[in-house]
Amino acid sequence: MKRVLLCVAYDGTAYAGWQVQKNAVTVEGELNKALSDLCKETIEVIGASRTDAGVHSLSSMCVFDTNMRMPAEKFSFALNTKLPDDIRVVWSKEVNENFHPRHCSTEKTYEYHIYNADFMPPTKRLYAYQERRELNIEAMKEASKYLVGEHDFKSFCSAESTAETTVRTITDIDVFKDGEEVVISVSGNGFLYNQVRIIAGTLMWVGLGVRKPEDVKDMLEALDRSASGPTAPAHGLLLKSFKFLEEEGLKP
Amino acid sequence: MKRVLLCVAYDGTAYAGWQVQKNAVTVEGELNKALSDLCKETIEVIGASRTDAGVHSLSSMCVFDTNMRMPAEKFSFALNTKLPDDIRVVWSKEVNENFHPRHCSTEKTYEYHIYNADFMPPTKRLYAYQERRELNIEAMKEASKYLVGEHDFKSFCSAESTAETTVRTITDIDVFKDGEEVVISVSGNGFLYNQVRIIAGTLMWVGLGVRKPEDVKDMLEALDRSASGPTAPAHGLLLKSFKFLEEEGLKP
Repeated sequence: MKRVLLCVAYDGTAYAGWQVQKNAVTVEGELNKALSDLCKETIEVIGASRTDAGVHSLSSMCVFDTNMRMPAEKFSFALNTKLPDDIRVVWSKEVNENFHPRHCSTEKTYEYHIYNADFMPPTKRLYAYQERRELNIEAMKEASKYLVGEHDFKSFCSAESTAETTVRTITDIDVFKDGEEVVISVSGNGFLYNQVRIIAGTLMWVGLGVRKPEDVKDMLEALDRSASGPTAPAHGLLLKSFKFLEEEGLKP
Repeated sequence: MKRVLLCVAYDGTAYAGWQVQKNAVTVEGELNKALSDLCKETIEVIGASRTDAGVHSLSSMCVFDTNMRMPAEKFSFALNTKLPDDIRVVWSKEVNENFHPRHCSTEKTYEYHIYNADFMPPTKRLYAYQERRELNIEAMKEASKYLVGEHDFKSFCSAESTAETTVRTITDIDVFKDGEEVVISVSGNGFLYNQVRIIAGTLMWVGLGVRKPEDVKDMLEALDRSASGPTAPAHGLLLKSFKFLEEEGLKP
């Protein structure tokens, strides 16, 4: 028996998110199906995080246990022959049998992509949110500074969240232009439900002049979801990178 | 009665190409349907060029005649409310009633996109061809020089072509790196069936060392399709820009 860690990338367009659901096609469900088929045993992966319907990922982590003798590194290739085109295993490797992807310190980076032009090419429509009015990037950068560090992000968390605490640490936020796109890059050790999408919606408010950069300080202090901006649409969001900070759980 | 010119962009993934076909969904067919619905008359556009199934476009041109009184510039907005998300009218304008998009000198630029890395993000899979082995861009650039200018491109044209002459002029070819992508940009006044895809397939041969840059000269001189490289897959191809060089047919 060995435990294998997978790094998985996907185009979230066709999926009802990461997590297995009844009567819906999910990324986790497709992985379980491909793995069970490959290993000839019933396999259910344990994911390190979830994404909502329509969100994309370059770096989702999950583990599974198997009796199959194939070297762990070979699983990525073998699984990719069974998975649909819009889900790809980037790499696979063996980890210690007590390694649990949700009981580890991590650093994740999400990117929110905004196509900031009057015309968005149809080939971009599934991967960026279009905002026709010009965004003030300097104002967005200034606003983002209030969010960096350890804060109670209750105002930046879906009211539906059941998290025990809404205190989280954002290690960095960058707002930059890439061609016609404005990209909001948010790094942290863990995120609340809808946190990055609410941050994106709020920074867009600031970029459009609906709110001033310094208003973000008041929004944080309000500890009330209704104080912050709208939840930006899912399809603009990408889980860009994911790192486990405690490497001891990972075999060399 | 007025003649209106449309600039149309599309994600070609879901379409059996530009041209109307029985029992297949095409870009031209969707435009005819949306226009006929909007104008309450049977409308068939006249396209300036075609693309194959899976090819994308940022700048396809077509005209139509209508009795509708709406100003020509408003058609883009009105049509976009009726068209599917993956087809967008970029702009619309009135042209002289004798303007014909296929009887005009034009300059077109196609781009062929190659994702040149071991791993291609699933969000790129519909818009770039993946080549895992490293491409030698300098060799591709050198090879491309033999193709620039007026030549008989019989070796770089589908054997199924029915064109009267296979002489065409390529005004420029550039090969450049954009992140992980290698982009082949080809400009000219008109192209033969599959010409850009065969050029891309041939330059990839050179980039991989299968052929030398100077072999391209012999391929041209052979006047034989079997002398040149493979036809690169459709989904890597994008019609990037399209210009009419005789502006007299266009109203100000």
